[in-house]
Amino acid sequence: MKNLLVAQSGGPTSAINATLAGVVENALSSPSVDRIYGSINGIQGVLTENLIDLKTKLTNVSELDLLCQTPASALGSCRVKLKDPAVCADEYETIISVLRKYNIDCFIYIGGNDSMDTVDKLSKYLNAKGITDITVVGAPKTIDNDLCGTDHCPGFGSAAKYIGTTFAELERDCHVYATKAVTIVEVMGRDAGWLTAASCLARANGAKGPDFIYLCEVPFSIDTFLKDVKAKLEKQDAVIIAVSEGVKNKDGRYISEEVQSSAVDSFGHSYIAGAAKVLEDAVRNEIGCKVRSIELNLMQRCAAHLASATDIQESRMLGKTACQYALEGATGMMAAVIRTSDKPYATEFKALPVCDIANAIKSVPADYINDAGNDVTEKMVDYLTPLIQGEMNTVYENGIPKYIYLY
Amino acid sequence: MKNLLVAQSGGPTSAINATLAGVVENALSSPSVDRIYGSINGIQGVLTENLIDLKTKLTNVSELDLLCQTPASALGSCRVKLKDPAVCADEYETIISVLRKYNIDCFIYIGGNDSMDTVDKLSKYLNAKGITDITVVGAPKTIDNDLCGTDHCPGFGSAAKYIGTTFAELERDCHVYATKAVTIVEVMGRDAGWLTAASCLARANGAKGPDFIYLCEVPFSIDTFLKDVKAKLEKQDAVIIAVSEGVKNKDGRYISEEVQSSAVDSFGHSYIAGAAKVLEDAVRNEIGCKVRSIELNLMQRCAAHLASATDIQESRMLGKTACQYALEGATGMMAAVIRTSDKPYATEFKALPVCDIANAIKSVPADYINDAGNDVTEKMVDYLTPLIQGEMNTVYENGIPKYIYLY
Repeated sequence: MKNLLVAQSGGPTSAINATLAGVVENALSSPSVDRIYGSINGIQGVLTENLIDLKTKLTNVSELDLLCQTPASALGSCRVKLKDPAVCADEYETIISVLRKYNIDCFIYIGGNDSMDTVDKLSKYLNAKGITDITVVGAPKTIDNDLCGTDHCPGFGSAAKYIGTTFAELERDCHVYATKAVTIVEVMGRDAGWLTAASCLARANGAKGPDFIYLCEVPFSIDTFLKDVKAKLEKQDAVIIAVSEGVKNKDGRYISEEVQSSAVDSFGHSYIAGAAKVLEDAVRNEIGCKVRSIELNLMQRCAAHLASATDIQESRMLGKTACQYALEGATGMMAAVIRTSDKPYATEFKALPVCDIANAIKSVPADYINDAGNDVTEKMVDYLTPLIQGEMNTVYENGIPKYIYLY
Repeated sequence: MKNLLVAQSGGPTSAINATLAGVVENALSSPSVDRIYGSINGIQGVLTENLIDLKTKLTNVSELDLLCQTPASALGSCRVKLKDPAVCADEYETIISVLRKYNIDCFIYIGGNDSMDTVDKLSKYLNAKGITDITVVGAPKTIDNDLCGTDHCPGFGSAAKYIGTTFAELERDCHVYATKAVTIVEVMGRDAGWLTAASCLARANGAKGPDFIYLCEVPFSIDTFLKDVKAKLEKQDAVIIAVSEGVKNKDGRYISEEVQSSAVDSFGHSYIAGAAKVLEDAVRNEIGCKVRSIELNLMQRCAAHLASATDIQESRMLGKTACQYALEGATGMMAAVIRTSDKPYATEFKALPVCDIANAIKSVPADYINDAGNDVTEKMVDYLTPLIQGEMNTVYENGIPKYIYLY
């Protein structure tokens, strides 16, 4: 019989708990699994021996379903990155002692880049120490969609569906007045523009969608941006723009750094605005029409009520698969989604070496972006569309979605 | 046979099109109605003779249902307030000439305070001119919920459901890390705190919900706010706060004016921050922990995918009722919702003189706010809860909600 440990790490998503549900579901149904532990606050909970017994918390399918509609990491999260074991092995030894104390055979870590780095380092450390009876496996997660190897990351589809829907709603809202007005919407993504690109999905049912889409992969010029906006305002009243929070100028500096270095608040502290706020000021000062900036902020990663059914189902399957890999001893591997067809959409799961994935970033390819650098191409639409299909039958109680609490 | 004209005005909501659907539904089924016109961009469309034939656009129930799930004013909107007819009667005469040209017998105006002012002024002007064969009737609409007479305003329930759900999701998101962090969420409402109060609905299913709720009805002190937050941070890691955009200090000045008069951006223009941004800076400077501000912005008024079924059904019924009043000649009246019972929730509709409603604001009563001025009471919960019940079976196509376009 094997004992299992599962933990979640990095920024929350609407689908990370579906992956947890998949891990537990597979473990519950496996005759070779005895105890299922959850670590509170990711690897931090392992280091501090803060573990809970998940078999007492998740006993049936309806609780697992409720877990799938609960946003953010139900086991808590952390931003811990393990040190290089050659410099400091203390953390690794602590982790091993806790795993040994609870007789853990399999550790499944659900997370993004830093979490995959943890899976990589820990599995290598165990290997170097000749410890072969503990497997460490990664399950991907990040709304940023910037992990290599996997076609896409669990959580991204739901965030993309939220972004597409929200841009469709904002377009309706912004087009009601017969006056010139610019709305600039800032979308998460410092190093990869996938989320911002998802704003194009607002066009799915015949709407114009955002008028411009600026991804952080393309060097951003405020002058070109203002020319784009001015030209569009000559043709129509409302102009709506999607912009990555991470847009940088040709020198690689964030737009907010480029423009706002001299701004100070009333306390005398320099004011760090977001990209949309900076562009709002630029439109107000250089064009002079009504202008508003909007940050989708945390809502884009926690709006579980608008999750993509495709994303939640895949995330749950990926959790099951990661659990299976761990039970089969595939240490140092990450469960990945491989797309085998766009139309009809078809995928399969595969174990990839996590060392090929950790610490690399998958940017938007150049041919997914138009030549002017202010919109996406059909390739992007074809890539995104399958990921947002389907709606969850969210259970509401008292008018508000119902959640499960694990600790 | 009568000809009907309907228009929408003021800020968009998720329910204003349900009221339009109700008006058209009643008109389509009434044997005494011939033509149904829609004015584009509210009263502005009447002044410029920009009318469309709604019978060709809305021919069956499925189109009316689609209209009910389409956010924002499908006929467009405006912010026009008619001048005092004693000073300038030109606009009134133009309106009458257009109404006469199209043989309009009934004009139904869906909107908030300014729109009810238009209904009031226009009906009085017609009356003073001895014109008795044109009726002007108002149908309420505003997410701010600040119209007098009516128990609540169509659109408010859906915004409240969005706000309650979003705070529930944000709470899950913010509680995942074991580090001290403050999240300040700014909610719409300059003169009435109803929307901000709706954040308490996040507690409906056992969650803690926001730790503090500051409404614009209570004089706001940054010192007291910082004391509240410090005390709470000693007990828990994540602190979440709801604040009305319109909070003012004891002298009646907006918090942003009080604090940020000296802040300038890099162009040298004084920077006008929102309430949450100002409080974010205060927490950063005075407490020093991790802090983030979030504006729910336009999303809280256009998130039709999360509309309250109670709100949409009532809004549609209210449109039907307003149409009926207009056909019966009840000029200068507004269709209102009267609550006859909290538990079980029961309402009836009533025609109220619009002159008693226009230009007055319904604030949150003192006994709906706790003594410390940083939360709401059970009375508020009892008032709000029925308004967010039920979910719409939103029709999605290609992963995104489907809308109808009238022009």
